[in-house]
Amino acid sequence: MSQDLTLYYAPGTCAQAVLIALHEAGAAFQAQRLNMAEGAQRTPAYLAINPKGRVPALVTPQGVLTETAALLLYVAQTHPDKQLAPLGDPFQLARLQEFNSYLASTVHISHAHRPRAARWADDEAAQKAMQAKVPHNMRDAFALIEQHYLGDKTWVMGEQYTVADGYLFTMAGWLKSDSVDINEFPRVAAHYARVAARPAVQAALAQSA
Amino acid sequence: MSQDLTLYYAPGTCAQAVLIALHEAGAAFQAQRLNMAEGAQRTPAYLAINPKGRVPALVTPQGVLTETAALLLYVAQTHPDKQLAPLGDPFQLARLQEFNSYLASTVHISHAHRPRAARWADDEAAQKAMQAKVPHNMRDAFALIEQHYLGDKTWVMGEQYTVADGYLFTMAGWLKSDSVDINEFPRVAAHYARVAARPAVQAALAQSA
Ligand SMILES: N[C@@H](CCC(=O)N[C@@H](CS)C(=O)NCC(=O)O)C(=O)O
Ligand SMILES: N[C@@H](CCC(=O)N[C@@H](CS)C(=O)NCC(=O)O)C(=O)O
Repeated sequence: MSQDLTLYYAPGTCAQAVLIALHEAGAAFQAQRLNMAEGAQRTPAYLAINPKGRVPALVTPQGVLTETAALLLYVAQTHPDKQLAPLGDPFQLARLQEFNSYLASTVHISHAHRPRAARWADDEAAQKAMQAKVPHNMRDAFALIEQHYLGDKTWVMGEQYTVADGYLFTMAGWLKSDSVDINEFPRVAAHYARVAARPAVQAALAQSA
Repeated sequence: MSQDLTLYYAPGTCAQAVLIALHEAGAAFQAQRLNMAEGAQRTPAYLAINPKGRVPALVTPQGVLTETAALLLYVAQTHPDKQLAPLGDPFQLARLQEFNSYLASTVHISHAHRPRAARWADDEAAQKAMQAKVPHNMRDAFALIEQHYLGDKTWVMGEQYTVADGYLFTMAGWLKSDSVDINEFPRVAAHYARVAARPAVQAALAQSA
């Protein structure tokens, strides 16, 4: 079944988390890169696949799925032997979804106010005011991740690497462009290096480079 | 086990979706109301429960869970007989998570730029510019829900009511305060009325009134 998967992605975006998960799962899939600088996410052909005009989108034999947190759960559930999520434990699975949902609804949004400020205000001065607050909000979010979520664990969920790790890695990779030094958060920085060293992650980065 | 659940919520917030899910599940739980107008979400006592200073938070025997989409999955998974999520089908479950993730990361955020604009810019004129765009963004999101997600289905997932329905109901309830008439979206309006008529939903609303 996984041979019929096609991931629509763009380098450096949140879709990278799904690309990493597919590599970690050893899934057979095709990757379709969108040139977002040229607006490929808003062509009629792509909007027919994902009417939201965003990446990621994953074409599966049963239909198209969107939203990073949902795709990560799908990849984990369809490759249970890879243990990319604590599928057998409702509390631990909810914790994983909690973390991924925090990344999607707070961290990603904090970041998006820099490159995508125009989504939330038409006025140019307002967009500048939003962009000015991005480093503050990213710092707040990564302070919470550092203390509350990572603590002294190797991976987000403890001893076992899960889809959450590639997702955090992807967002930690945005800090620099948001004018925040990752080394302000030593555990996040160490986690970033651990994720970067994984063969599946290197394969995903090589593919999207 | 569900007797040890405590939900921290405030009326009219996204936590209402979890309150509804707990009632639909027939769970035994306690509900702790926070007076957010008085800043109860930022007291040291509450921050010890949820360092994010937000609702919802669900205290379970294994620990505290936050993030609406994660709590909804937890309630569905711990009450499998109630069929509040398509637990046996990875594709359908990912679709449910996709919908809930869209509500959390796009619809909720579109709305929050009205009451919580100060999160994303310190400048008062910028906050006003964000607030001015809220009706536009809510309309965009509900147009997508109307056409792409609801279509002619009874419930978000088809014939079976799931946790997504109480979540959509909660956010559709915000449209009025965002200066959008729900009747611009006839399927959303009909869905809202169907959800409102459910006994569990009426019990949840009575409890939080
Ligand atoms: N909530 C969605 C957000 C997806 C999203 O915003 N993707 C960005 C890239 S990180 C995008 O495609 N932006 C293109 C655009 O806004 O035109 C998710 O978590 O997948
Ligand atoms: N991503 C979180 C968002 C939670 C959230 O923003 N809750 C709001 C109520 S809808 C809140 O507690 N706001 C209080 C505040 O910002 O002080 C979720 O989906 O649960």
